[in-house]
Amino acid sequence: MPRYKLVIEYDGRPFVGWQRQENGPSVQQAVEQAGAALSGAASPTQAAGRTDAGVHARAMTAHIDLGKHLTAEKVRDALNFHLKPAPIAILAAAEVSDEFHARFSCTGRSYEYRMINRRAPLTLEQGLAWRISGKLDHEAMHDAAQLLVGKHDFSSFRASACQSNSSVKTLSSIGVARDGDLVTISCAALSFLHHQVRFMTGSLVEVGLGKWSANDLREVLEARDCTKAGQVAPAGGLYFMGASYPDGAATI
Amino acid sequence: MPRYKLVIEYDGRPFVGWQRQENGPSVQQAVEQAGAALSGAASPTQAAGRTDAGVHARAMTAHIDLGKHLTAEKVRDALNFHLKPAPIAILAAAEVSDEFHARFSCTGRSYEYRMINRRAPLTLEQGLAWRISGKLDHEAMHDAAQLLVGKHDFSSFRASACQSNSSVKTLSSIGVARDGDLVTISCAALSFLHHQVRFMTGSLVEVGLGKWSANDLREVLEARDCTKAGQVAPAGGLYFMGASYPDGAATI
Repeated sequence: MPRYKLVIEYDGRPFVGWQRQENGPSVQQAVEQAGAALSGAASPTQAAGRTDAGVHARAMTAHIDLGKHLTAEKVRDALNFHLKPAPIAILAAAEVSDEFHARFSCTGRSYEYRMINRRAPLTLEQGLAWRISGKLDHEAMHDAAQLLVGKHDFSSFRASACQSNSSVKTLSSIGVARDGDLVTISCAALSFLHHQVRFMTGSLVEVGLGKWSANDLREVLEARDCTKAGQVAPAGGLYFMGASYPDGAATI
Repeated sequence: MPRYKLVIEYDGRPFVGWQRQENGPSVQQAVEQAGAALSGAASPTQAAGRTDAGVHARAMTAHIDLGKHLTAEKVRDALNFHLKPAPIAILAAAEVSDEFHARFSCTGRSYEYRMINRRAPLTLEQGLAWRISGKLDHEAMHDAAQLLVGKHDFSSFRASACQSNSSVKTLSSIGVARDGDLVTISCAALSFLHHQVRFMTGSLVEVGLGKWSANDLREVLEARDCTKAGQVAPAGGLYFMGASYPDGAATI
């Protein structure tokens, strides 16, 4: 079956997450149904990351196997047609060899967590950011966050449901920046534990509010105990921003 | 009655517009009801601009007369409490003298129109921007837009329902900028005709797509005939960005 690499944007609010689940609509199911409507055959789809319910994607990479051969442009436009009115859009499609696997070929993943730092409730950003009332010291957050860079046992920042074999991960980079009321955490790694970015965000907020020092954050990391971490930041502020692959890998 | 100046943000999607209307919920009605719940008396509210159904505001200035005296912080927080769960937020409140009038004291209004320039449908920006598939030449749009600056008869960019006495308005500034796929038109004037920004946007898109030259835009302006203009851009891309007042005017 011809395989296509897809770059997908979605609003996570109506979905139980990327992955198919019994308890509600998933992005994976919607894309697979659109593929089946387009090609007349089951169209299995895999993505670089499995976002949770309510988590968004600006550029999720996936691959889909279609029952017939079509140009990449036709795949993109026809999938978008069949996806309507779900808030899922295929930004780009490219034919790839069947050696390409969106999950297993992936060499890096990046996320962004968006906070609106103000007292007033959110309107246009409801479900799209986390409102933090207290003034956040984003520079203190940025500085403390650098403690997390590198190879660590991230057990303190891991959901109990996490299925990863190991809690040791290597965080490639993390940065905290402010633009007016918007405070954004950007981070990249080969892979992340379940809820890792949301756990890290909740703990960095403790630093930003002045409740924790950078050393407190270090102690939480070293405790390897998620009950020591700050709260899990709400899903709606999290965005899967992109997946990377070896240059030109498996592209036809 | 004590008067308070409010700066209000709202998501225009669920509303018939700022102004009270028979046919559905308005932002004005929601704010007045919150004021009544807070102060136990009718709380008439006026705004700097009357946005249409589906049009958003980042910083609409309004004034509200309350039945009792409260601190500005209490007004802001209590209005936000009573506004829940409507997507309306009071960003700031300040007590002002009764000489202050959000509409009649206003010395300038600014709007932003947001377009996403890409082929794929919108997901996270559904109802928050206008998708334009064809490649927009934002520099050509910016250059042509400068023709509109200054005092003109804007009859070509005016809704038939416009209630303004005169179609002559002075556009203070207009700019078109691109940030990735996002193309934004920003403009400011003492006041605007009904649908003026959306009419100007629709016509500038004709320029951006290469269908019109700057001279075509000039001819449309000079025709003083709205049937000559481009389409009225959809409401969801438009944001009321701010109102200005004489420095310190009527502030208590």
